[in-house]
Amino acid sequence: MSPDRLDQLRGVYRDGLLGDTLPFWTEHCVDSQHGGFMMSLDRDGTVLDTDKGVWQQCRFTWLLAELYNNVQPNQQWLDLAQHGCDFIDRHCFDPSDGRMWFHVTRDGEPIRKRRYAFSEAFAAIAYGELFQATGDDSYRTKAVRAFEGFVKQSLHPKASDLKFTGTRSMKGLGVPMITIITAQELRDSIGMSDANEWIDRSIETIRRDHMRPELECVLENVGPDGQFIDHFDGRLINPGHSIEGAWFIMNEGKYRSDTELIQLGCRMLDWSWQRGWDSQYGGMLYFVDAKGLPVQEYWHDMKFWWPQNETIIATLLAYHLTGDTKYAHWHQLIHDWAYSHFPDRQHGEWYGYLHRDGRLSSPVKGNLWKGPFHLPRMQLMCWRLAEQ
Amino acid sequence: MSPDRLDQLRGVYRDGLLGDTLPFWTEHCVDSQHGGFMMSLDRDGTVLDTDKGVWQQCRFTWLLAELYNNVQPNQQWLDLAQHGCDFIDRHCFDPSDGRMWFHVTRDGEPIRKRRYAFSEAFAAIAYGELFQATGDDSYRTKAVRAFEGFVKQSLHPKASDLKFTGTRSMKGLGVPMITIITAQELRDSIGMSDANEWIDRSIETIRRDHMRPELECVLENVGPDGQFIDHFDGRLINPGHSIEGAWFIMNEGKYRSDTELIQLGCRMLDWSWQRGWDSQYGGMLYFVDAKGLPVQEYWHDMKFWWPQNETIIATLLAYHLTGDTKYAHWHQLIHDWAYSHFPDRQHGEWYGYLHRDGRLSSPVKGNLWKGPFHLPRMQLMCWRLAEQ
Repeated sequence: MSPDRLDQLRGVYRDGLLGDTLPFWTEHCVDSQHGGFMMSLDRDGTVLDTDKGVWQQCRFTWLLAELYNNVQPNQQWLDLAQHGCDFIDRHCFDPSDGRMWFHVTRDGEPIRKRRYAFSEAFAAIAYGELFQATGDDSYRTKAVRAFEGFVKQSLHPKASDLKFTGTRSMKGLGVPMITIITAQELRDSIGMSDANEWIDRSIETIRRDHMRPELECVLENVGPDGQFIDHFDGRLINPGHSIEGAWFIMNEGKYRSDTELIQLGCRMLDWSWQRGWDSQYGGMLYFVDAKGLPVQEYWHDMKFWWPQNETIIATLLAYHLTGDTKYAHWHQLIHDWAYSHFPDRQHGEWYGYLHRDGRLSSPVKGNLWKGPFHLPRMQLMCWRLAEQ
Repeated sequence: MSPDRLDQLRGVYRDGLLGDTLPFWTEHCVDSQHGGFMMSLDRDGTVLDTDKGVWQQCRFTWLLAELYNNVQPNQQWLDLAQHGCDFIDRHCFDPSDGRMWFHVTRDGEPIRKRRYAFSEAFAAIAYGELFQATGDDSYRTKAVRAFEGFVKQSLHPKASDLKFTGTRSMKGLGVPMITIITAQELRDSIGMSDANEWIDRSIETIRRDHMRPELECVLENVGPDGQFIDHFDGRLINPGHSIEGAWFIMNEGKYRSDTELIQLGCRMLDWSWQRGWDSQYGGMLYFVDAKGLPVQEYWHDMKFWWPQNETIIATLLAYHLTGDTKYAHWHQLIHDWAYSHFPDRQHGEWYGYLHRDGRLSSPVKGNLWKGPFHLPRMQLMCWRLAEQ
């Protein structure tokens, strides 16, 4: 990768983050009346739905405090992070069991709780950054408690929280992946003492149970002991998801100067790229089948924003760590395809949902699932990488 | 509509049903080893997943017995219906609470139960047709019990079966719609004595709560007293679904010689056609927003098979009942678009999932949701209508 290209990329990521993504959200989503953030925005920032997704409350709070801690101590960012945290504290926990909601009204009345506990993981990293930003010990306590809530619900759910019977138990890639990134973040922000054990255990779960050398893929769902389940769910590959996991593991290898972990992450990236890169239209597909059979989910061949974001990070990081020009080439392919299809030139930020061929499916900028997270995290990480 | 066109249509529907759809399924889906039907089929009929969806077990059993009762007393159809019924009896009920499963393994071990109870409604109509075919009173008893299970779970679910908190209660169009068609079927097959009350009550619920003259649309979800909920879920229109409900009500008007009911059904069709017909590419869209805003579900603009099937029925029935040439024109538009995009010329039957512009998204012929139901029901109904 030429110095010119790197220099240009650094500007694209940095200016995109600070001059486009962040202002889009800070201008449109802050609810000064009821607190928190309204994230269901139309392409021009108009609020489409005043409801609040708990994931996005936590993730934007994390992002703002992360930027405060790592980019510049901008008081507006810290104030907004505390504004988000205040809403989370007041409205996003169910006092009856301590678990978090998934979806609340504008004024914080609960609408829905999910069986799983990713809200808790995103809350943990938000609290962690706020501890780092302020030194207020109560944030550290809340970060630890939220992380404990996440792992407890993920590893030992109540019987009434199970979606399936015990006939064919399955476990997903999401839990070990989110455990890795959450523990990495908390190691960084609050110095969580058992972070490394959680990370080691989760990487081992992915390596042993989800990675299939005989199929050269990372499976989204496997049996409790890593059994291959030859049904729709068991054959499912979510390339953007496993590529996200790949860079979590590469980053761990970088942190520990552990070449084997870097190679493990690169293998996940290699396999997932081969499965997910759409050689016909470009971009990363959403779902593919491990045996090349049809997938049950009907949105399987759409191009969502976040798998592209995660692939841009992973390819740039792999190039940075290995110097292998294959990754520079892949990075150029995915970066160029994504940047030629997703950005909204008129109103800023990225669209989230394109058809397979890159045409727009939905103009929304945010909803319960899309908010200021994957795109700005990519911009932040790749800006830093391009500087190194 | 010219006699020639009607004659040609009759052949398309009849031959499609008896020469294509039905043989596709009877040749590929019957599980002679474990009973029941394996419905997750690739385009050529290869089994993609041996699991069994309970909806499809019940619906195919219904179809086979319905054909036996109404087309010809073909013993193979009755034998297969009893083969399906046997699997339903043995494997599709949870003995712990009497409710039905949604998804079981090939050999009938339970995988998943849903919070709602549409399995029970589909079982009821299957049992009903088998009573009519055989005169065996135990089928009538089972039909009544399954219908009671459906209405009990739909109207009075246990607190633990609720997906949402009570903060913003919502009710869906599915329950009154399925109540109407199930009661109509059971009136016909077992002479269910309180069918008319269930039908009247459900039509009134749709008319009063889901139909919105000020918006000229049928809302998929409303508050308990029909309140408009100005959020993603409350603004949702599922045109194919409300058009399906429209022909249930038109058919009731035909049965009772009640012009007002026919007009009510036609109004639902008119509104839903205006919202759902894709004037750019043709075909019925999956979801649209009552205020013309973006929809949250990402598959909103795909063309699924069943909304086309239901619209073909509704437009032909509306033309049959009113003679209004507008409906003949709409029927031609939807029939021609669907028949030029959905049939698989090589392996028979219809694809289920196309992109907005009519290109193929997934080649599957069946899965937990698609099976021998909407298409053959359309072919049967429209064959009969074209003969009248």
